[in-house]
Amino acid sequence: MSRQNKPIRSDIAYSMPDKLVVRGFDLPKELIGVLNVGDFAWLQLTGSKPTTEQSRMFNAILVTLAEHGITPSALVARMTYLGAPEALQAAVAAGLCGLGSTFVGSTEGVARMLYEALPPGQPAGEDLRAKARAIVEGYRARREHLPGFGHPVHKPVDPRTTRLFHVAEECRFAGDYVRLIQRVAEEAEKSFGRPLTLNATGAIGAICCELGFKWQIVRGLGVMARAVGLVGHILEESVQPMAGEIWLRAEEEASAHLRNPGC
Amino acid sequence: MSRQNKPIRSDIAYSMPDKLVVRGFDLPKELIGVLNVGDFAWLQLTGSKPTTEQSRMFNAILVTLAEHGITPSALVARMTYLGAPEALQAAVAAGLCGLGSTFVGSTEGVARMLYEALPPGQPAGEDLRAKARAIVEGYRARREHLPGFGHPVHKPVDPRTTRLFHVAEECRFAGDYVRLIQRVAEEAEKSFGRPLTLNATGAIGAICCELGFKWQIVRGLGVMARAVGLVGHILEESVQPMAGEIWLRAEEEASAHLRNPGC
Amino acid sequence: MSRQNKPIRSDIAYSMPDKLVVRGFDLPKELIGVLNVGDFAWLQLTGSKPTTEQSRMFNAILVTLAEHGITPSALVARMTYLGAPEALQAAVAAGLCGLGSTFVGSTEGVARMLYEALPPGQPAGEDLRAKARAIVEGYRARREHLPGFGHPVHKPVDPRTTRLFHVAEECRFAGDYVRLIQRVAEEAEKSFGRPLTLNATGAIGAICCELGFKWQIVRGLGVMARAVGLVGHILEESVQPMAGEIWLRAEEEASAHLRNPGC
Amino acid sequence: MSRQNKPIRSDIAYSMPDKLVVRGFDLPKELIGVLNVGDFAWLQLTGSKPTTEQSRMFNAILVTLAEHGITPSALVARMTYLGAPEALQAAVAAGLCGLGSTFVGSTEGVARMLYEALPPGQPAGEDLRAKARAIVEGYRARREHLPGFGHPVHKPVDPRTTRLFHVAEECRFAGDYVRLIQRVAEEAEKSFGRPLTLNATGAIGAICCELGFKWQIVRGLGVMARAVGLVGHILEESVQPMAGEIWLRAEEEASAHLRNPGC
Repeated sequence: MSRQNKPIRSDIAYSMPDKLVVRGFDLPKELIGVLNVGDFAWLQLTGSKPTTEQSRMFNAILVTLAEHGITPSALVARMTYLGAPEALQAAVAAGLCGLGSTFVGSTEGVARMLYEALPPGQPAGEDLRAKARAIVEGYRARREHLPGFGHPVHKPVDPRTTRLFHVAEECRFAGDYVRLIQRVAEEAEKSFGRPLTLNATGAIGAICCELGFKWQIVRGLGVMARAVGLVGHILEESVQPMAGEIWLRAEEEASAHLRNPGC
Repeated sequence: MSRQNKPIRSDIAYSMPDKLVVRGFDLPKELIGVLNVGDFAWLQLTGSKPTTEQSRMFNAILVTLAEHGITPSALVARMTYLGAPEALQAAVAAGLCGLGSTFVGSTEGVARMLYEALPPGQPAGEDLRAKARAIVEGYRARREHLPGFGHPVHKPVDPRTTRLFHVAEECRFAGDYVRLIQRVAEEAEKSFGRPLTLNATGAIGAICCELGFKWQIVRGLGVMARAVGLVGHILEESVQPMAGEIWLRAEEEASAHLRNPGC
Repeated sequence: MSRQNKPIRSDIAYSMPDKLVVRGFDLPKELIGVLNVGDFAWLQLTGSKPTTEQSRMFNAILVTLAEHGITPSALVARMTYLGAPEALQAAVAAGLCGLGSTFVGSTEGVARMLYEALPPGQPAGEDLRAKARAIVEGYRARREHLPGFGHPVHKPVDPRTTRLFHVAEECRFAGDYVRLIQRVAEEAEKSFGRPLTLNATGAIGAICCELGFKWQIVRGLGVMARAVGLVGHILEESVQPMAGEIWLRAEEEASAHLRNPGC
Repeated sequence: MSRQNKPIRSDIAYSMPDKLVVRGFDLPKELIGVLNVGDFAWLQLTGSKPTTEQSRMFNAILVTLAEHGITPSALVARMTYLGAPEALQAAVAAGLCGLGSTFVGSTEGVARMLYEALPPGQPAGEDLRAKARAIVEGYRARREHLPGFGHPVHKPVDPRTTRLFHVAEECRFAGDYVRLIQRVAEEAEKSFGRPLTLNATGAIGAICCELGFKWQIVRGLGVMARAVGLVGHILEESVQPMAGEIWLRAEEEASAHLRNPGC
């Protein structure tokens, strides 16, 4: 029982009676009324204010991830709000819980895949195509889903991908990681014999590598962005509800065979 | 059992194979790479892009709410990440669950209080001070905590409040609701015989009324903003952890009397 | 800044290398393999093992609250699982977030209402009917929904209520709080001129008062019980899914007017 | 866009005005007041009422997982309750979010590991020891943590493991999966040259295989059980709080170096 306490330490922020400092900046004087919240997010994650290009690229990613209509996470937030309208924060929280491996979390898988093929700080060399081919073959051999590819609606091209790569070009972030995921797309098309949509999470995973984010935190961009979208859905639900109707229909249909076994 | 289905409808967004539209704007062409995520949030909540003043004011609110150091919600996110590092979204969600009546949720209480005293669209008249006095007396009579007032650290003045009101002046949002909460502060000081800090949630509640947000959604601004801050805490926790140490210390101290009943 | 640390203390449990003690009982020797988990919950909440009657009554409440088919909370858990199948705990958590004022949380409102009319430890006197009438009149005057009454399906009688009161009779828990809620039902029927279903949450709120639970914790019984039900829904979803289909249908219908504005 | 609706269906429960049926049983008549909630959970997960042995074994698992003192998940629930005491369900939900790969979720890893070595329905043959050796060697070769082993407090023996295996013997569930995890423990000890604690999650993972649960749902037992424990912690927090004190201490210490950079 002779455990020694270890010190704990955070470098993010501190408060004094007349002062709040975040990442070394005086919050009221240097940040409030000065930064947009996307730039603040960059500061929070990196410790520095973004350059104009970083700001545009990073906000472009967040805007892409914020809203996608009636998704499972929007439905979850709306149904939770139906049960607990007094706890809006819990409705947003519930909606975020599902941003896992199936949807938004795939940005993480893309970033990890690209970092493993091309570790940060290491020159890419001439072999991006060979690396891309190795990635595709590896996933096929392990019968795993290639993260960042495929979309139920956006076929054959996800218009967000096109736009994000365009912004990346303009902001000078279309480097080796972007080229690598594009090579992966080409090799996958050859290997599968049909076009695969390089979806927005694929583009974002690659650009996050360009921006230098650890793969472990990439999913976090989707989480913070989607919180914005979910608040909008809850606001709409409060005046134009759908959760109750979806529930009643589902309940009725799902148990009809139990209620009327003869039918 | 002859329930008729009711139609369901959302006006936020829709997708086509080559197109995504959010609030009437083509997402890839008109929003990605164009708007910062704070302005996108305004669009998501109001249906229109913000003016320059609305953008500055709204982003100022979000930046104020995003980060406040080692708060209970940051500790919750860090401790959840300790147990489930593979589910970052659940750690953010857990951290948001506590943004209720005690902390960030008080913005909602302020907005509601001000709207009840001064319904939207109704002229304030000459009687802001009388309304303020009635508010203070009402809360004292019901022995309820006056929302938006008091702070354990920032005394007697919360520097965020000063700054937010300054930005509101510059952006021409220092109208009747801002004046009313300031009158409430003066009347409360007279009534209690000591200065009460008008804290940041008090200022934000009032400015949200100026911006026209329904009180039911005001808490949502804190929720979306804090999601940004929590991702930053999880990133720091992943390289400089504190959750495990806090846990072990708490466990040891809290149950010492059971473990060593003689002491 | 001269804050003095205050001690922290928990009396629930402690561990030693060869021992775990919960509420004073040796967990491996005296609880595991001895108690069912419902009786353990009673021990956890009260500090004592239940009597036979307390065990039967308390487990009856938990069984009542555990499962109610395709509810919003079941749909939330299933949709969250669709997005993050690797984080089952987050799917259950999301499902629980909506157990607020609209559904299961109404047990809390009932218990609070009854305790306010009849504070614990105070003799009920002859006037249960007068108290019941005052309750009904108060809610009508404040235009508030009377907690514990009404049900969309179970009309005019909720069969769970009948059964719970029957078990309460058998277990000798049909005391003043049960009688009071029954008087409230009668007075409400007179006042509204039509039968109102005394639903299961009404019965449970009253019985929780008989069992001596603080009203602040009554909602917790529904939360722990529903966690059981939600795990069952996730298991079914993993082999016989509905979340994806419900999502696609909702998305299609809700945005059809945007996609085809001419129709 | 010519998607055909697919039917949705649930076989868990249905309601009629005067009737509720769960898993084929009349809820009020056959389950409420008859089953304890642990046996109900078995019914919910398997579709049948448990035998006496199944009931004892299954409840033993749930009781083991319900409570472990001041854990990260208990601290998370308490800190969330501090911020949102009006939303107890969200505090429990937040506490559950961290039951991931590090703690309770390891039961899942154990069950998966054992099922992969010994697929259900396949005779174990004489080679349990060889299978155990292959498991240990595989984990060492991949440098992965062997799930179900190690404990910071319970060394060298976790008393819950001993007890659970004893109950499994008595209930005739000490079959090949229990023997296999015990062989794994022996082989790991040989391989690492020191005793490794076979912890409670290791024992539970093995017994869940004996009981026939899919590995994908095993984590769910910990989730439902821990919900019970967390409600108890919230109840204690409401009368004997620790969350605020832990927060203030952590905040003060973690940012002291920022506040007083000279020290």
